[in-house]
Amino acid sequence: MDKNIHYVYTNTDQEEVARLLSKYDLTTICVLNDQHCLIGIVTADDVLDILTEEATEDIHKMSGIIPTDGSYLKTGTKEMVKSRISWLLILMISATFTGYILQYFEDKLSAVAILSASIPIIMSTAGNAGAQSSTMVIRGIAVDDLSINDIFIVLRKELFVGLLCGAILFITNFIRLFIFGSKNTTFNISLVVSLTITISLVSANIAGGVLPLLAKKLKMDPASAAAPLITTIVDATSLIIYFMLAIVILKI
Amino acid sequence: MDKNIHYVYTNTDQEEVARLLSKYDLTTICVLNDQHCLIGIVTADDVLDILTEEATEDIHKMSGIIPTDGSYLKTGTKEMVKSRISWLLILMISATFTGYILQYFEDKLSAVAILSASIPIIMSTAGNAGAQSSTMVIRGIAVDDLSINDIFIVLRKELFVGLLCGAILFITNFIRLFIFGSKNTTFNISLVVSLTITISLVSANIAGGVLPLLAKKLKMDPASAAAPLITTIVDATSLIIYFMLAIVILKI
Repeated sequence: MDKNIHYVYTNTDQEEVARLLSKYDLTTICVLNDQHCLIGIVTADDVLDILTEEATEDIHKMSGIIPTDGSYLKTGTKEMVKSRISWLLILMISATFTGYILQYFEDKLSAVAILSASIPIIMSTAGNAGAQSSTMVIRGIAVDDLSINDIFIVLRKELFVGLLCGAILFITNFIRLFIFGSKNTTFNISLVVSLTITISLVSANIAGGVLPLLAKKLKMDPASAAAPLITTIVDATSLIIYFMLAIVILKI
Repeated sequence: MDKNIHYVYTNTDQEEVARLLSKYDLTTICVLNDQHCLIGIVTADDVLDILTEEATEDIHKMSGIIPTDGSYLKTGTKEMVKSRISWLLILMISATFTGYILQYFEDKLSAVAILSASIPIIMSTAGNAGAQSSTMVIRGIAVDDLSINDIFIVLRKELFVGLLCGAILFITNFIRLFIFGSKNTTFNISLVVSLTITISLVSANIAGGVLPLLAKKLKMDPASAAAPLITTIVDATSLIIYFMLAIVILKI
């Protein structure tokens, strides 16, 4: 007879129940009330549905969707608008800051026309890198693989991964611009663009890795607090890096 | 005695096993070999780990990460670079097309300086809308809620949700630009920017909803085939819409 009985309470979070069943390979777990009396059991098959639902919720939150009950087909248009509009509005307003940065450096942009053509590549690369690192860390937190205590490990790993990926993208991009680019793309312009990509990739990786852990530490939900905002933060940072490097290297 | 016994074969996909256990609320399922002989069982607690792993894989793929075995902490730097670099490169190269579009309309941009300041807001809003709809549909496909047969329902729903969200963002953005914007922001400029946001939001919603279903139909993985590319497609489309509207309404 197994004397080591696992149990949960009526107010235990359903994710915790799933985690216990999964961790100890149980097919059932006892449920106790506040007076430690057995009032029922939860079976592993109940938990299958819960895990799927929780994963769906996390996935939705990471893309700036407030989770809704029910499936795509069962969710009405009005409810779907409600679940999407808040983040669309918040992110639209926060993107105006990126716009102000562009506006602020307007004269630099017109001084070297070729600079504006590289803005999408810089912003999208940094955004993708930020999404990659934040996704890995947010999911790591969700499956109890990462906690705030690992912040320095995450920091170091994202730094190295960022530097390595950044080096590869630097070379690819430099070749693309300097060798295959138009005649106006000088060595220095190629250098500014490629260097911006590398630096903003590293900062995006670090921001994406650290912000979800900080959100968790501040008792916020990493998926909804960190993920949708990271792109905006990363967009603004990479543009500032771009113009700073352009001012220093191109002396504009 | 229950005569309605559920079973799977040795080569049944683990996701399918999970789906059956979850659907029929089973705690165990029989496993048969090719000769229909019982060779073992799978219990619901085994499937808990599988479901969690599969969800992690899907989440990673949607952010352009090639899934790795093992947790964040256990994955080495080299392996992590490998899992991230391909999509970073593919998306960096595809973002050059967005750059070419900007370059092509360079003279229009310099004619009305205020136009470039709104590029981040347009691209990020469309990108966010595309991420929202593609996320919902990709997850819907993963949990067997959506299939290619639902494509017209998805199309209609994304159209209506897009139009409603687009209308709200149109009003917010028009007020922001025309009432609170600088003196240079005329009625027509505010109209061009706000209209671009609405139209590119609707197209992003539709692209995000339809592309994963088409990927599935073409036997490709919706998460890795559709999700990372949608931002690039949506970026390019929204810039083209922007310049077309600017040419027509501002007569530049």
